[in-house]
Amino acid sequence: MRRGLCALAFALCAGGSARGAVWPKPRSAQIGQQTAYFATVQFRDTSPNQTPELHRAFKRYEALILTHPAEAATGSKGTLYVEVHSFSAGQMNVAMHEAYQMSVDNDAVGKDTKVLVKAQTFIGALRALETLSQLTRFDFDKRAYRMDGLPMAFDDGPRFQHRGALIDTARHFLPLSSIYAVLDSLSYAKMNVLHWHMVDSQSFPVSFPSHAELAREGAFSPSELYDVEDLKSVVAYARDRGIRVMAELDSPMHTASWCGGQPGICPDPEACPEPLDVSKEETFKVIGDLFDDIRGIFPDGMLHIGGDEVKMDCWNQSASITAWRDEKGFSLDDAYHYFTNRVIAMAMERGYTVVGWDEMWKHFGTTLPRSTVIQNWNMGNQTDVTNAGYRVLYTSFWHWYLDHTDTTWQDAYAANPAEGVANGVKVLGGEGALWGEYVDASDLMATLWPRLGAIAERLWSVDGATRDLDDAEQRLADFRCLLNRRGIPAAPLNNSIAREEPPGPGDCAGQ
Amino acid sequence: MRRGLCALAFALCAGGSARGAVWPKPRSAQIGQQTAYFATVQFRDTSPNQTPELHRAFKRYEALILTHPAEAATGSKGTLYVEVHSFSAGQMNVAMHEAYQMSVDNDAVGKDTKVLVKAQTFIGALRALETLSQLTRFDFDKRAYRMDGLPMAFDDGPRFQHRGALIDTARHFLPLSSIYAVLDSLSYAKMNVLHWHMVDSQSFPVSFPSHAELAREGAFSPSELYDVEDLKSVVAYARDRGIRVMAELDSPMHTASWCGGQPGICPDPEACPEPLDVSKEETFKVIGDLFDDIRGIFPDGMLHIGGDEVKMDCWNQSASITAWRDEKGFSLDDAYHYFTNRVIAMAMERGYTVVGWDEMWKHFGTTLPRSTVIQNWNMGNQTDVTNAGYRVLYTSFWHWYLDHTDTTWQDAYAANPAEGVANGVKVLGGEGALWGEYVDASDLMATLWPRLGAIAERLWSVDGATRDLDDAEQRLADFRCLLNRRGIPAAPLNNSIAREEPPGPGDCAGQ
Repeated sequence: MRRGLCALAFALCAGGSARGAVWPKPRSAQIGQQTAYFATVQFRDTSPNQTPELHRAFKRYEALILTHPAEAATGSKGTLYVEVHSFSAGQMNVAMHEAYQMSVDNDAVGKDTKVLVKAQTFIGALRALETLSQLTRFDFDKRAYRMDGLPMAFDDGPRFQHRGALIDTARHFLPLSSIYAVLDSLSYAKMNVLHWHMVDSQSFPVSFPSHAELAREGAFSPSELYDVEDLKSVVAYARDRGIRVMAELDSPMHTASWCGGQPGICPDPEACPEPLDVSKEETFKVIGDLFDDIRGIFPDGMLHIGGDEVKMDCWNQSASITAWRDEKGFSLDDAYHYFTNRVIAMAMERGYTVVGWDEMWKHFGTTLPRSTVIQNWNMGNQTDVTNAGYRVLYTSFWHWYLDHTDTTWQDAYAANPAEGVANGVKVLGGEGALWGEYVDASDLMATLWPRLGAIAERLWSVDGATRDLDDAEQRLADFRCLLNRRGIPAAPLNNSIAREEPPGPGDCAGQ
Repeated sequence: MRRGLCALAFALCAGGSARGAVWPKPRSAQIGQQTAYFATVQFRDTSPNQTPELHRAFKRYEALILTHPAEAATGSKGTLYVEVHSFSAGQMNVAMHEAYQMSVDNDAVGKDTKVLVKAQTFIGALRALETLSQLTRFDFDKRAYRMDGLPMAFDDGPRFQHRGALIDTARHFLPLSSIYAVLDSLSYAKMNVLHWHMVDSQSFPVSFPSHAELAREGAFSPSELYDVEDLKSVVAYARDRGIRVMAELDSPMHTASWCGGQPGICPDPEACPEPLDVSKEETFKVIGDLFDDIRGIFPDGMLHIGGDEVKMDCWNQSASITAWRDEKGFSLDDAYHYFTNRVIAMAMERGYTVVGWDEMWKHFGTTLPRSTVIQNWNMGNQTDVTNAGYRVLYTSFWHWYLDHTDTTWQDAYAANPAEGVANGVKVLGGEGALWGEYVDASDLMATLWPRLGAIAERLWSVDGATRDLDDAEQRLADFRCLLNRRGIPAAPLNNSIAREEPPGPGDCAGQ
């Protein structure tokens, strides 16, 4: 039989170290020596507050655990009983509780298997179910599902609160089916944030009620649109999986697509379309209207306002903007500061915690409200910003930009989101960023995965346990195969260029 | 608004020519000038024999038509009523009826829309539902689903009976989820055969009951297996979509993976493993046992026995095989002929129509039973074989091998499966072949699609209507976007190398 390392020495990977078989690696796991077999699974919610999200998750995880036709499992009539107790329904926000405890043991007779999950919230319970589902497999010889390493006890929870992926629906429209698949896959890696970079210079695919003209004129085509119900549907789908959706409305740059519907707020809609016209009240009126729409759609507490790569040439070339600046006595950077302050204030008035790209810190430093979260994509270090009391999200251009197809999983895994930071609590977490210039529905998943898995483990698992590439390699290869089995076309692990084809015939885990 | 050609001139693509909006192109379509809007869809089966396959298809097509959250469609309370009448349940075989007639019209009041489908079998009805689903779209301005070109009348049916795709689960294991997704996608292009190249030299992933040792020793890993229930589940899933599953058990070559479980039927399991040992009765016993297993699993009337690329060096190097040949007075080619005749006879005894690669014709010509179907992968022309009364399947190495990533959709579309054939009825159809050396779950779909779409139209639609690349280009681009919306990661149409990334930001249909 031709096998990868784990297949050759299965006990090493799953039996002898069930902790190792789960991706991302649990904080603490006690593993025994027994094996359980079962033919079916039953879930029960013993929580004081029954959450429909959890009950829908039971259905999903039943399908993820029972991977073969029902008739296949005839070798055992045992049942995997899963009892879940979560103490409160839980709110979806950056401080949400995701920790869980889980024990797995054979019953006294040895016929059935009992799983006990305790979690503060249904979200922690979801994380436990994911762990459980990764510990089961179909044993073709026994014709039953199998778990090794019983009795097991897990005490698990995340290192960082914010563990996300950025998708970009402006360079290419991503159909709803693609976004749902991303959310499915995030939940398999215990990630909890979808950062939705909704619009950019190339297209404006979101039909906001207050300004439908923006998408009508700015979308790539009449069918490449999201309307409010689509957005709400994504939010609900994400919530069911314990995932927050953080919207990004990037301004003042990356806004050329606004000019079709709102030519009046662009310096020159054709010749010099961006950044948005800082001198017009109408500019802020439109942004405020969109924030109102967003507030009604995205319940998350964070709003990303962009603020990156602001090239102010068009503010210099416009006679009216120059006149306005002269009147105010504003330099170009003053104008950028003025714009940023107003947009931050508008977001905060609507109750949002504001997130922005690190140019905002570089330009405005401690003049920013202390509550502002800085997303680090190309800062050399995070020391100054965290020492100054600001929170950061780590999304290093060098390590976690997944559209860089020559960034390997090892590059991603080598990054420590809290590197050089004395005040670690100021690091909320981080995100893998998948900018969409060369990504559409055809290559989205193979570009995200398995490299996003490396990021997920660095964000979930303790730092000291996630510095060893050798320890990670086979486990991540197995996780990639798990994704494949679940319908996620994650690319071969050892690719030097992310979404290349497999190198030749062979087993999944060896490629 | 940035748009592709069809978006700019939607009437041209869907309104003015609804026939053009359907892929593959229907045989005959009458298109009107009216537009219908609807918020929901209702299906009714008025057939004398109610088929559960059709009722499950109603559920699928409801989801494929109503692509947005239910709350989204508020602009109209109209209903799309779909009434389906099929005259018989229909058998799944190469002669099955797939034609249908369909009319679509507004009702007298103009509020609801009425669709009438008539088909000989539920399979024809499935094809009608696919056509219908491609004619509807969500209109974001009206907040309702929309059909243009009413009243419409279709009289449609396939040019060829056998329209398939070959998948290879031996070079890489394909998870069940991947195979189900392939079947979904085939149905979207009205293809009707999954040719399953199950085993090959590199691995033996099928756990046959009569010889479980073959997969136990020949699979890549203990989890990269299909058992009988898995296979039956694929057959049932395919049947629901009007797709036959044709199994291929390739021999005597491409069999090195058999040697782990059955070393005795290989000339030398390590040094010279294939072709299978022609001199041993046990060889034919094993093949016969596997045919019995296959007969119980795959109800299709065709069995592919392979027979390709037989290099007989190992038959020359084995002392025992040489002695056996001397005793029989067999040349190497005589031995190959003897092997082939016995395997064909065993398949025919079990009621199968035998399919083999074209080496069998090249070597044995008219000594083959006249019922043998020759799959043409590298014959220069098909004239001799069809003139001799044999049926062929077209799978040209130059045009329809989809693992050749430099074969473009235009190359595939340029091929005529009946080129140079006087007796056209002898061409059963053809297949796109996706050999698996560089294909696994990560790149399967982007390698198949959209190029398999070009093949599908050449096999379904009349020859004269499918020779114009310009006519096809935008329609195929739209079909690719439809696949993307349905969760199939079909690659950009204009790629020069099949599964490359999109060339840059832009609309789906323009890439």
